[in-house]
Amino acid sequence: MSLDRLIDRITEMQNPTVAGLDPKLEYVPESIKDECFKKYGRSLKGAAEALISFNKALIDSLYDIVPAVKPQAAYYEMYGYEGVRALCETIAYAKSKGMFVITDAKRNDIGTTMQAYAAAHLGLTDVGGMDIEPFGADALTVNGYLGSDGIAPLLDICQKQDKGIFVLVKTSNPSSGELQDMKLESGKTVYEQMGAMCEKWGEALPGKYGYSGVGAVVGATYPEMLKELREKLPHTFFLVPGYGAQGGGAEDTKYAFDKNGIGAVINSSRGIMCAWKAQGKSHEAFAEAAREEALRMREDLRQFL
Amino acid sequence: MSLDRLIDRITEMQNPTVAGLDPKLEYVPESIKDECFKKYGRSLKGAAEALISFNKALIDSLYDIVPAVKPQAAYYEMYGYEGVRALCETIAYAKSKGMFVITDAKRNDIGTTMQAYAAAHLGLTDVGGMDIEPFGADALTVNGYLGSDGIAPLLDICQKQDKGIFVLVKTSNPSSGELQDMKLESGKTVYEQMGAMCEKWGEALPGKYGYSGVGAVVGATYPEMLKELREKLPHTFFLVPGYGAQGGGAEDTKYAFDKNGIGAVINSSRGIMCAWKAQGKSHEAFAEAAREEALRMREDLRQFL
Repeated sequence: MSLDRLIDRITEMQNPTVAGLDPKLEYVPESIKDECFKKYGRSLKGAAEALISFNKALIDSLYDIVPAVKPQAAYYEMYGYEGVRALCETIAYAKSKGMFVITDAKRNDIGTTMQAYAAAHLGLTDVGGMDIEPFGADALTVNGYLGSDGIAPLLDICQKQDKGIFVLVKTSNPSSGELQDMKLESGKTVYEQMGAMCEKWGEALPGKYGYSGVGAVVGATYPEMLKELREKLPHTFFLVPGYGAQGGGAEDTKYAFDKNGIGAVINSSRGIMCAWKAQGKSHEAFAEAAREEALRMREDLRQFL
Repeated sequence: MSLDRLIDRITEMQNPTVAGLDPKLEYVPESIKDECFKKYGRSLKGAAEALISFNKALIDSLYDIVPAVKPQAAYYEMYGYEGVRALCETIAYAKSKGMFVITDAKRNDIGTTMQAYAAAHLGLTDVGGMDIEPFGADALTVNGYLGSDGIAPLLDICQKQDKGIFVLVKTSNPSSGELQDMKLESGKTVYEQMGAMCEKWGEALPGKYGYSGVGAVVGATYPEMLKELREKLPHTFFLVPGYGAQGGGAEDTKYAFDKNGIGAVINSSRGIMCAWKAQGKSHEAFAEAAREEALRMREDLRQFL
């Protein structure tokens, strides 16, 4: 009913990293693509099989040193329902290796519809009296623009199934401030208000480390705001994108951690998936390069734990 | 590059209705479910086949009187990737009957990731040199919390592929005001600010009726705000949920239309899908009842055209 399972794994592994699995086909080496295209054609099915092979190799290379993975739904949806099958198989494989899985789908809707999204990504679906798990992630990113009744069905499933959510508070992209940084009459910014809502929603899902089951997405690309939010949101665990390829460094992420060295998980996607490039290795060595980068990142971040 | 294709169809049919296709399995009559479960088991595949049969029957019953359908992605995702296949087949079938398809998925992310969502739902995906259409809707609902760079990739695809988007401005749910109604220092509310951003984004996609390719979602459940937004957003076409099952009536939706009787499309989901109940018919007569309700709704709304 909280994010304790994630924090437990971070503590055990002494590594607050989540590896983003955003597998564009161009990140997949030719040998994998050739094999899949030969077997299934240059089709969405062929593409999906290539993504699955790529992801499995990355997971095999990372699962004993990285506590969590974060597949980004968009990069699967772009290959149609076959791509969505690749998402499903990636989640199952990562879980079979003991990893905590955060599906980054930023879902949002009115209450009745959020029930369907909650069942889809974190819960169970009833099919003629059978309870079936459609995707089975451990946590889901969501957008809180619709307010409490778009969040309530998730809290319910988090409580029953021991899952968590991460609400977008201050995103890592250049234009995030257009709405999020606007000042409200109360003197608070929109992102502070969203953060305050996370603290309130989280009251229903307390955790043993003091962090609730309602986390927040806060970008490493805005370190001052990260610092401010860490102080103002003492029960809200952070998912921090923007490290690596988006320009944030370890110095920028340090504010995400509390005085006990917990409070956040830092995401790297392209930095890990495409590490072979930065390391001057061949594309075929992507999994080995990913592990090397994950070990480097672990050292980089351990200083804050 | 705008919503003109939708407005053309509304004008031709003299009907500003979009039929929501949110097919929970409980809405599907037993005879369809029994047949699909017998063939494919009580499985996500069996569920997906039942949704496809149900949707095709609804589309067959509506396509000559209703200009558009709006499948809600959540009700497909809850049946896993097989459910997402049902979404894909539903879109293809509705398009084959000439309907305008709005995928209601409320997607949102940073720019690079929105490129993937834009390709997925409105555009094309490159697979080893082949351009494949993953879902192929005519328009997509999106959430603008991340600002311009989360919208830009969509504008680009709308321009190239003659598609449109609808941005959440003032949603129909009870708690929508928690964030959306907050006053900013400027005196504007958050939803007014989001509306103003729609007008700005829409400048890139002008249309022959004066409405751009960037529409807004504005709930019928807040008629005063609908009226206010119609005046303030003269180039923004509205997608109006909340008619029927959510409590809004024709009187509440009249403010969505401009003095020429255009400017909006009104959604009904459960009202049409579950019309057999209100009409005291058998569940098996759902398609015939849906048509009857769609004809009633057309009369109800025609007074404003």
